Amino acid sequence: MKTNPGRFFEDYTLGEVIAHAVPRTVSGGERALYHALYPARGALYSSDEFARASGLAAAPMDDLIAFHTVFGKTVPDISLNAIANLGYAEGRWLKPVWPGDTLRSESEVIGLKENSNGKSGVVYVRTRGLNQAGEAVMEYVRWVMVRKRDASAPAPETVIPALAPAVAAADLVIPEGLDFSRYDFTLAGEPHRWGDYAMGEQIDHVDGVTVEEAEHMLATRLWQNTAKVHFDATQREDGKRLIYGGHVISLARALSFNGLANAQVIVALNAGAHANPCFSGDTVRAWSEVLDKAETAAPGVGAVRLRLVAVRHGAEPFALKGADGKYLTDVLLDLDYWALMPM
Amino acid sequence: MKTNPGRFFEDYTLGEVIAHAVPRTVSGGERALYHALYPARGALYSSDEFARASGLAAAPMDDLIAFHTVFGKTVPDISLNAIANLGYAEGRWLKPVWPGDTLRSESEVIGLKENSNGKSGVVYVRTRGLNQAGEAVMEYVRWVMVRKRDASAPAPETVIPALAPAVAAADLVIPEGLDFSRYDFTLAGEPHRWGDYAMGEQIDHVDGVTVEEAEHMLATRLWQNTAKVHFDATQREDGKRLIYGGHVISLARALSFNGLANAQVIVALNAGAHANPCFSGDTVRAWSEVLDKAETAAPGVGAVRLRLVAVRHGAEPFALKGADGKYLTDVLLDLDYWALMPM
Amino acid sequence: MKTNPGRFFEDYTLGEVIAHAVPRTVSGGERALYHALYPARGALYSSDEFARASGLAAAPMDDLIAFHTVFGKTVPDISLNAIANLGYAEGRWLKPVWPGDTLRSESEVIGLKENSNGKSGVVYVRTRGLNQAGEAVMEYVRWVMVRKRDASAPAPETVIPALAPAVAAADLVIPEGLDFSRYDFTLAGEPHRWGDYAMGEQIDHVDGVTVEEAEHMLATRLWQNTAKVHFDATQREDGKRLIYGGHVISLARALSFNGLANAQVIVALNAGAHANPCFSGDTVRAWSEVLDKAETAAPGVGAVRLRLVAVRHGAEPFALKGADGKYLTDVLLDLDYWALMPM
Repeated sequence: MKTNPGRFFEDYTLGEVIAHAVPRTVSGGERALYHALYPARGALYSSDEFARASGLAAAPMDDLIAFHTVFGKTVPDISLNAIANLGYAEGRWLKPVWPGDTLRSESEVIGLKENSNGKSGVVYVRTRGLNQAGEAVMEYVRWVMVRKRDASAPAPETVIPALAPAVAAADLVIPEGLDFSRYDFTLAGEPHRWGDYAMGEQIDHVDGVTVEEAEHMLATRLWQNTAKVHFDATQREDGKRLIYGGHVISLARALSFNGLANAQVIVALNAGAHANPCFSGDTVRAWSEVLDKAETAAPGVGAVRLRLVAVRHGAEPFALKGADGKYLTDVLLDLDYWALMPM
Repeated sequence: MKTNPGRFFEDYTLGEVIAHAVPRTVSGGERALYHALYPARGALYSSDEFARASGLAAAPMDDLIAFHTVFGKTVPDISLNAIANLGYAEGRWLKPVWPGDTLRSESEVIGLKENSNGKSGVVYVRTRGLNQAGEAVMEYVRWVMVRKRDASAPAPETVIPALAPAVAAADLVIPEGLDFSRYDFTLAGEPHRWGDYAMGEQIDHVDGVTVEEAEHMLATRLWQNTAKVHFDATQREDGKRLIYGGHVISLARALSFNGLANAQVIVALNAGAHANPCFSGDTVRAWSEVLDKAETAAPGVGAVRLRLVAVRHGAEPFALKGADGKYLTDVLLDLDYWALMPM
Repeated sequence: MKTNPGRFFEDYTLGEVIAHAVPRTVSGGERALYHALYPARGALYSSDEFARASGLAAAPMDDLIAFHTVFGKTVPDISLNAIANLGYAEGRWLKPVWPGDTLRSESEVIGLKENSNGKSGVVYVRTRGLNQAGEAVMEYVRWVMVRKRDASAPAPETVIPALAPAVAAADLVIPEGLDFSRYDFTLAGEPHRWGDYAMGEQIDHVDGVTVEEAEHMLATRLWQNTAKVHFDATQREDGKRLIYGGHVISLARALSFNGLANAQVIVALNAGAHANPCFSGDTVRAWSEVLDKAETAAPGVGAVRLRLVAVRHGAEPFALKGADGKYLTDVLLDLDYWALMPM
């Protein structure tokens, strides 16, 4: 068979490193599309001048472009037969991605656990995105539930990796040269600095975006993500296309500009859950909560740990889970990340 | 409150200069998207070779990319609480925008007039777009009706700026070096030169485009225009998203290629009215009328003043207003501009 | 009349060369859009690094970007009044197109045949795409059925050009420097090399894409193709927009990655038929058949001649025509091309 059937649970071996296909050179084209697909307005990523005034050589590509590009490459090997995308941990952005960089990805299998039903199992991978110089630009752990090809295949030894509940502030990697000591709050769009955000503070980002099929498919293809459910309306009985979870991440992050305009740089992904599926026609809104704060060694640069929640229009403000501990049905995304802000 | 509530009428002071947020570096990505979003075919903006043969260093960005980018930045400060976008005047393009340029905007409040109902007022601003060297690339006056936060707030002194009914031909700024003396009419797409257009001549541009939600949202986001009504289907009772007026401007201008292929460079915006709202599903057509003509000092370059009208399919040809002096319901846009043509 | 009415059958003269309008400089923006519009994943066109390892200076623009750009320019002169796009032959890609190149097109009328009804005729043109140095980047023959303006106009002498049923393997032009001797099959995405494909082998490419109006219009505009039926829902009684046949070509070609990931370079278009119209909402699938194989003089480079068939979801696998010799109604495209693969 010439076509790729994807891997099944029994095809993964603890410790193996999978080199993912189709390296990708990114350019101003990907950036322009990103800004057309999402209401992204972070000044550091929009303006070469603003980036230079912040100690960088030019505006880097939006951090989530790096994430989606690296993630998209893993789909044919990791999640083509996935039943569910269960979680993220220990994600870190390690180097900015610049226009002209070429990215590729590789994943190490760091955990395996067959489900008790014998029909599927959970695969844990640590994925690294590498640039043309072989430098890691980001890394993250993801675990997915994957079908077994053959229910009678023997279960592997169960290995569940010990994963940090969050990236420690001391482990955050600050882009080389980043300096917010002469930060222009007017050009950035909001006056709120690191010191203005309080632990536990919640921010309703107010704006909403109604999602169209063409938009999420353009985005998902741009990242060369090949999962059938995002593109092929015949895959589900209801004829709907399931929107790539990363589309919701980028949408919510961009919406969070309104209230978090200065949370410029994403440096860590602590955890994330795609709580409910998102479909075309949904109007997506977002709110954030300040989970933690930390200082950094870079001039004028503070770190803030944020919960970013995407919801469907009509969701109760700041409500996440029901009494049963399950996500409410209008919650789409619950993301935990670290961002860098001017102090 | 961390989110931007927008300004209300009483928040504006005569003479104040508002620096708008989020500078933007534009590239070939924005150009490609513009050409995918609109049937734009102006040879000077499509081909570096054609631009060089016309005395420029390379193809500049489409003039309306400059306009939309500069305009988009003003939305959070000027029109977030606007009830209506009332008019444009004294618009001039002052320098070409090149790929790699970084644009920012600032607006001076040049007029204020509270409405007799005491609930809103009209704000007049002169907006300037600046490049990374601080040079003005364009300027225009816009006036919008803005809500008052507090109806009991005192009315400011009424100041209505004296605005020219049209930019005088002598004030048009010709891009440095522009030379149409060796203009290639075959490559440009039409044989009609400046001398072939007569005052009062009307041109039906024949073609039509049926508009989709995904398209106008991609465009409006690309210009970082944040007005909620363009993106959020829950903002109106009928569940429709209002299409950004600038999307209709670019659509009509691109449609006008068929008959005005040689009206290459937009140099002034004399006036403009968004006569009726445009929605997804509308099929947009356009017609033009020659309002004035002028010679310029640049070799082979003439100027033509045009009325550009966008209408919905089914509109009566060349009909603009009813007996009551109001725009007919199928008229979407009535724009008055100066363009440069080969003589 | 200032607008372009298009040419009618009696407007073509055997031997005349038509220079088409609106040269176009392509950049990373067009590439990014192409990768957002189609699930294109060819490593040679996605990664500058992969291209360099294959002997090229950088990743060229996808071969079908060259085709669509060259083709789009011909529409106002060749097919604006076309009733049907009848066929392609003798298509060859002659030079890679690089970001920054400026393309223009010209067509020579090589055949004319009035239909027996006297109301239309068939026009054969050989179209060449030229870069800024005047070098041909591709050429192909296309024939279209065009309306007569005046049924009483005299019929021209019938000249039907002798066209090769397929480009001979010896006539394929290999991009200068192309070397697949150190080809990285892992990064390319599949292990199958030239020797793994057998004559007559059929491959079901498995994946499907449901098409949206916004997508095909973005694509078709990007190529500055102005045919009304693709954009204007009022052109047909059923209110549907007819999808540009080239959109289906690019979609099917991109879908064929799954099974033909290593058929990297398109070098010839032997024949092609747009068997049935495609509309928004259709879910497009694709299959291929190996028609021929040839060696080449370039290191590690083999050629494979492929039939690429696009079908609507639900089509019978590998079925092309009915007992009556006509294409089945769910067949959208039947394309015959040569591609280069690692040996």
